Amino acid sequence: MKLKLLSLIALIGATLLSPGRADQPNFVVIFCDDLGYGDLRAFGNPTIKTPHLDRMAEEGQKWTQFYSADPICTPSRAGLLTGRYPIRNGMTSPKRGVLFPDSSLGLPAVEVTIAEVLKQRDYATAAVGKWHLGHLPQYLPTAQGFDSYYGIPYSNDMARIKGAPNYRQQTDDPDYYADTNDFDVPLMENDRVIEQPANQNTITRRYTERAVEFIEAHQKQPFFLYLAHSLPHIPLFVSTDFRGQSRRGLYGDVIEEIDWSVGQVLETLRRLDLAKNTVVVFTSDNGPWLSFKTHGGSAGPLRAGKGTTFEGGQRVPTVFWGPGFVKPGVVDGMGSTIDLLETFAHLAHADAPTDRKMDGYDLTPALIGKGPSPREEFFYWTMGKLHAARSGPWKLHFLQREAVQYSRLVPMDHPELYHLEKDISEAYEVSTTHPQIVKDLTAKAEAHLEDTADSLPEQLSARIPNFKYRR
Amino acid sequence: MKLKLLSLIALIGATLLSPGRADQPNFVVIFCDDLGYGDLRAFGNPTIKTPHLDRMAEEGQKWTQFYSADPICTPSRAGLLTGRYPIRNGMTSPKRGVLFPDSSLGLPAVEVTIAEVLKQRDYATAAVGKWHLGHLPQYLPTAQGFDSYYGIPYSNDMARIKGAPNYRQQTDDPDYYADTNDFDVPLMENDRVIEQPANQNTITRRYTERAVEFIEAHQKQPFFLYLAHSLPHIPLFVSTDFRGQSRRGLYGDVIEEIDWSVGQVLETLRRLDLAKNTVVVFTSDNGPWLSFKTHGGSAGPLRAGKGTTFEGGQRVPTVFWGPGFVKPGVVDGMGSTIDLLETFAHLAHADAPTDRKMDGYDLTPALIGKGPSPREEFFYWTMGKLHAARSGPWKLHFLQREAVQYSRLVPMDHPELYHLEKDISEAYEVSTTHPQIVKDLTAKAEAHLEDTADSLPEQLSARIPNFKYRR
Repeated sequence: MKLKLLSLIALIGATLLSPGRADQPNFVVIFCDDLGYGDLRAFGNPTIKTPHLDRMAEEGQKWTQFYSADPICTPSRAGLLTGRYPIRNGMTSPKRGVLFPDSSLGLPAVEVTIAEVLKQRDYATAAVGKWHLGHLPQYLPTAQGFDSYYGIPYSNDMARIKGAPNYRQQTDDPDYYADTNDFDVPLMENDRVIEQPANQNTITRRYTERAVEFIEAHQKQPFFLYLAHSLPHIPLFVSTDFRGQSRRGLYGDVIEEIDWSVGQVLETLRRLDLAKNTVVVFTSDNGPWLSFKTHGGSAGPLRAGKGTTFEGGQRVPTVFWGPGFVKPGVVDGMGSTIDLLETFAHLAHADAPTDRKMDGYDLTPALIGKGPSPREEFFYWTMGKLHAARSGPWKLHFLQREAVQYSRLVPMDHPELYHLEKDISEAYEVSTTHPQIVKDLTAKAEAHLEDTADSLPEQLSARIPNFKYRR
Repeated sequence: MKLKLLSLIALIGATLLSPGRADQPNFVVIFCDDLGYGDLRAFGNPTIKTPHLDRMAEEGQKWTQFYSADPICTPSRAGLLTGRYPIRNGMTSPKRGVLFPDSSLGLPAVEVTIAEVLKQRDYATAAVGKWHLGHLPQYLPTAQGFDSYYGIPYSNDMARIKGAPNYRQQTDDPDYYADTNDFDVPLMENDRVIEQPANQNTITRRYTERAVEFIEAHQKQPFFLYLAHSLPHIPLFVSTDFRGQSRRGLYGDVIEEIDWSVGQVLETLRRLDLAKNTVVVFTSDNGPWLSFKTHGGSAGPLRAGKGTTFEGGQRVPTVFWGPGFVKPGVVDGMGSTIDLLETFAHLAHADAPTDRKMDGYDLTPALIGKGPSPREEFFYWTMGKLHAARSGPWKLHFLQREAVQYSRLVPMDHPELYHLEKDISEAYEVSTTHPQIVKDLTAKAEAHLEDTADSLPEQLSARIPNFKYRR
């Protein structure tokens, strides 16, 4: 534990509290990989059947302007877990967007995660699923405040074995199904590899079983469960029970299995009488991966997808649920995964770090229905660069990436201004008629750049010399 | 009345039934103008507040693949009211897309409308709002089975007075508000003009008041109310109470007033204890008018908008509500406004016309939750030409229009094939890999063209000689 605790007495006191008290709610974060804004019924999807998420949204709070910390994987996760823009902890880089199996570094040990914050109050903590913040032992969840880890430590398409079909070339067929053995990714238990290649056909089911077991085992102690699905990132895999069930094709099958998983988690909470003292958040790490055609999701009405700082890349379908805390309804104020740390810290009466710059807001007023969201601005970073800034409804783009392949920066004649609430799809550029807004947003962006100037030097690009992937 | 009735006795019998019986449900059609698929909360809109429509969708049935009869105004309305593709009754033309103030013709008297079908069973019938099927006395609602009419008989932007600002050039400003006096459109009561120019600032409110009055006046007799809002067609107008209220800007204000209107209608039905014996349908005549920028709506995830036969032009946000008939839930089978006549006829134990070709399906099995929608195909017509055909999830485009301005036909190298359920946004053309589907859909389209070959010659283009608009 790296935090200076207010006092040892507080910690001891916390352990004496009866389990399930309102000042120590349980937290569950269900984090999807590459799920788009338009992929859920509650956010307008026409065909994918998600009865459990529908119910979760009806009983809970739907957030329609909620941002992931970055439009790609590693930095998005760093932002969620630390409550800081990933530029601050080296988890974004202009050279490599994310960690790879040959990466030698990960989230620095000095960073404080949500798990570590909640450890002040004696929470049981588990990470189940994708990690992608460093797969060497010193960077795994168990080194970042989690009591246990079970999952694939990076993206499920990494380490494709030589000679295997190139998935990218198969995606004209919406139902193309890969051989899980073609992706030599490890399944880990704590810091041990227990299966390789991981059988991804059953990975959503197995993550879910682990999640349910963890909840069952910790019903007498406050807990934090971070359930980060490896899917619907490509390659798409699904259990036999769900295969071929969705009108949306394989991508829909995958979402419908994740929906089943959500149902299992919520049903477990209800069955164990924990629903009233638990807050569950469902969200995604970034927008849909459009270059994979129908194997990627839909951003709904939003422009572009994963990898871009258009809304389709970072606005993610988000639902908060918690009958004892969360007021049912729709919140159309801003929020971000970056805000979860401050929010959970407040609800758990724990201290967020005060010895470093934090970027999150405590969303409690909006969650309990006592006020609007305190978040009024958002900064869009990717690949180590500030691409855009939002204040109120206005968003100014300084840098843009190509909408589908996103690897290429698109030259801009001048910064582009959009009114996100009147112009949902970022279709109508209005900088020339609103020079003062452009000036104000430019000033905010410059202040933010100055504020982040002391960030860690980039870490993502460091590689293990002579890396050879273990078989 | 043009229908051969089964017998006069049936008619007399019907009048003797107690009001509000289950075999004579009331029907209300709430028909918006240019409302897009993505403009309602229930269909994924992030900011427009529609609490009444949200509740209607929760208590009722949301249809996610429901089509208007045509992507522009006049033919869409002809299709809804007659249960036939508008090519059959002359209400579509390659020369003029819709009727104008100088048009000399309208929906032929020989056509049988829903109002006329329900007259067999002694329904009280009212049309409130936009008509656009002919504004000369012999074509008005009162000549087509409606006991009364109150509304603007064509589009609210027609007859712009000379020298008034060109609305089209103002739509860079999302909140630009026109002077209602610049549009010299008449407000009619039956076949009399009672106000000209109609004060459009209060038009939604006044339509709503008329609708409520009609329901109150006919609570002892089965009724059919056709409430066709003039908005959100441009120019946008809204009552003072709603102006400046929506985060979406003026367009959102307009939708929020329509939502209020829906609330008034449903609340009246509840208050008069008519809810259990009434079926209410909320839908739109076509997709959003994209060329008006933020003054137009959003098609959500769908491609293009009004005027095109892409999904954004014809798939409309549709909710059925009726606690005594409609099973709550989501229907993702196909439906169309063309199906309302057959459906209402079935529910009211009335006869649909049998002396002519009809294109609708009785949607009752899906509405009551006893089976899937019987509609398995749809033909996309506009400007007098068959543009595309759908069968199951497959759609083949033969002709395409430019996505935003839509006045121009876009040349196609070959027919384009899309799988609408796996590829929500018509983004991935797959004709080369599915030649048999192309062949089958082409055959279906050819059969449909043959089936419609005896259609009325075009009527829309006929004009009144030396037309001068009355002041």
